[in-house]
Amino acid sequence: MSEQAPVFDDAVARVRPVDAGAAVKAQAHHDQLTKPPGSLGRLEAAGAQLAAIARCSPPPVPEPAVVAVFAGDHGVLAQGVSPWPAEVTAQMVANFCAGGAAVNVLAAHVGAEVVVVDVGVAADVVDAPGLLRRKVRRGTADLSTVVAMSVDDARRALEVGATVATDAVATGARCLLTGDMGIGNTTPSAALIAAVTGQPARAVTGRGAGIDDDRWEAKVAVVERALARHAADPGGSGDPGDPLTVLASLGGLEIAALVGYLVTGSALGVPVVVDGVIATSAAVLATALVPEVGGYLVAGHRSSEPGATIALDHLGLEPLLDLELRLGEGTGACLALPILQAAAKVLRDMATFESAGVSDSQ
Amino acid sequence: MSEQAPVFDDAVARVRPVDAGAAVKAQAHHDQLTKPPGSLGRLEAAGAQLAAIARCSPPPVPEPAVVAVFAGDHGVLAQGVSPWPAEVTAQMVANFCAGGAAVNVLAAHVGAEVVVVDVGVAADVVDAPGLLRRKVRRGTADLSTVVAMSVDDARRALEVGATVATDAVATGARCLLTGDMGIGNTTPSAALIAAVTGQPARAVTGRGAGIDDDRWEAKVAVVERALARHAADPGGSGDPGDPLTVLASLGGLEIAALVGYLVTGSALGVPVVVDGVIATSAAVLATALVPEVGGYLVAGHRSSEPGATIALDHLGLEPLLDLELRLGEGTGACLALPILQAAAKVLRDMATFESAGVSDSQ
Repeated sequence: MSEQAPVFDDAVARVRPVDAGAAVKAQAHHDQLTKPPGSLGRLEAAGAQLAAIARCSPPPVPEPAVVAVFAGDHGVLAQGVSPWPAEVTAQMVANFCAGGAAVNVLAAHVGAEVVVVDVGVAADVVDAPGLLRRKVRRGTADLSTVVAMSVDDARRALEVGATVATDAVATGARCLLTGDMGIGNTTPSAALIAAVTGQPARAVTGRGAGIDDDRWEAKVAVVERALARHAADPGGSGDPGDPLTVLASLGGLEIAALVGYLVTGSALGVPVVVDGVIATSAAVLATALVPEVGGYLVAGHRSSEPGATIALDHLGLEPLLDLELRLGEGTGACLALPILQAAAKVLRDMATFESAGVSDSQ
Repeated sequence: MSEQAPVFDDAVARVRPVDAGAAVKAQAHHDQLTKPPGSLGRLEAAGAQLAAIARCSPPPVPEPAVVAVFAGDHGVLAQGVSPWPAEVTAQMVANFCAGGAAVNVLAAHVGAEVVVVDVGVAADVVDAPGLLRRKVRRGTADLSTVVAMSVDDARRALEVGATVATDAVATGARCLLTGDMGIGNTTPSAALIAAVTGQPARAVTGRGAGIDDDRWEAKVAVVERALARHAADPGGSGDPGDPLTVLASLGGLEIAALVGYLVTGSALGVPVVVDGVIATSAAVLATALVPEVGGYLVAGHRSSEPGATIALDHLGLEPLLDLELRLGEGTGACLALPILQAAAKVLRDMATFESAGVSDSQ
């Protein structure tokens, strides 16, 4: 690579497999708590995963939490894949900084701090409190006709995400939540998920912020053209199966930053709560680069975008929530956070049959 | 009726239909907020329901919350329907009062107050802080052979629940959560759900706290005998379709108290978050008695007990969570509370397109 990504490259080298022994210990502890074994269902699995990540049982409660909202624009918007104009990306960045967006309301509700990162917004973004100006370039190129960005640009975006994760954990965060903003970004997400999982464009492409049947058919065709172009001319290493090449060819700047954030959060040993389809596409790439990252990922919710379910199945993740959300921004990750924290508190705070003097089953 | 239930009877008379106009107003407001219309999925529906309950939009945030854990024992336990001994009901009441149970941990996590109510525990229950001693009788009779309780006893239990709801709202609660404890109580719940919905015992009967195939077959047979006995000899009014007669014949004391709590919370105009299969069976009876109650009910989660899904479908409720919980106590209702509160905060706190200067879709 012509450009160094020292924080990201260091993180890649440092991701350890999660500690399966701690998960076993947590499950054994669950079975001693004053409840029928297994009766807290998926909350018990989440607690065991937190133990595996923290390498101890009971695991610490995953708090405080940071939700990093990475923003970027997409050249493919020129193909009419969204009814929203590109200017909305920058307008929403301002809205995030002013505290008026859904992710602000939900993050405040669950006690998470919002960090907004311009990694690739096309327009100039005005300085504001809570905004990190880390623009790699002004949006991607149109991935249906050319590579979305160079591998060097992708690595610079990976480094932005890696640095945001590092700084968050350095300043005390013990749980990272993913967020994203980018008008048109369900198109690169669909393309990335299709490229890695091998599923057809029609299966992974959804209606994003809301489009009718005709526009959806056109969006499917755009994703198909992107995949065909990628197969013929992936750029990068020239290997259309190489994860970094896929990311640069079909991705978005905010998606690349999310990959860096996911890998680095994993390297730092904290749980990373994955939001919707944009973040799950980043997770698919992150685990393609570093398979051990999968153990650190918690799927916050099942987006109503079809690609999200295909990506979650590929990742082997069962989401905590299924509320038919399709907003992104980190909203689903924020809503899932109290459930994840509850899973840790069950292990930490519940009485055992012995300590409470409760009879076991017969 | 030979015994007055003044608080409950008053509540029955006072339940108003929720305000559909406020729900429409909330949905119109959702469409002005800085997000694609409908993109917060079921959170938007929950917000609209809260507006309908509060009769205004935006609705107040449903807090503070109380989770009332009604405890009772079950004569049908003699038929071997559970691997747990009846003494565990009283032991768990002590555990609730000491703060060591799952519902204590989860209620503390979400900021809800726990109230423990002995409405029908078989054993003597020791006085403790946070415990309301309202024992109507020492457990029910074996509903597979005789009516579980007299209609008078059922009305006394309804009154206990009604009084707990009234006191909670009088002392400031603006959201009521249901909780329950009673070894063996998935059997009366299954019987109640079968009796009201007409579904067969085999479809509504689950594995409760955990039983093998043989014990499950035996439990199905117990529910079938209970339903046959009820059809032949329902007690009460003599009409096996009369809701109060069904409740007394096939119910539990904690279930009857929950019915009183649900109806009274609805009469007082606050949202009531329904926990698992025990609470959904109570909700089926409450809406059979007073159909307008349905508008005030929020299904916290989908219990893994099959009867819960049948009851939720009967009620027309879509649960907020599906975490494969089967513990009861109010645990699922507690986990759902932050999501319900988030739904209100979205309506109250998000910016509109106009206020944030964000372009609308084209």
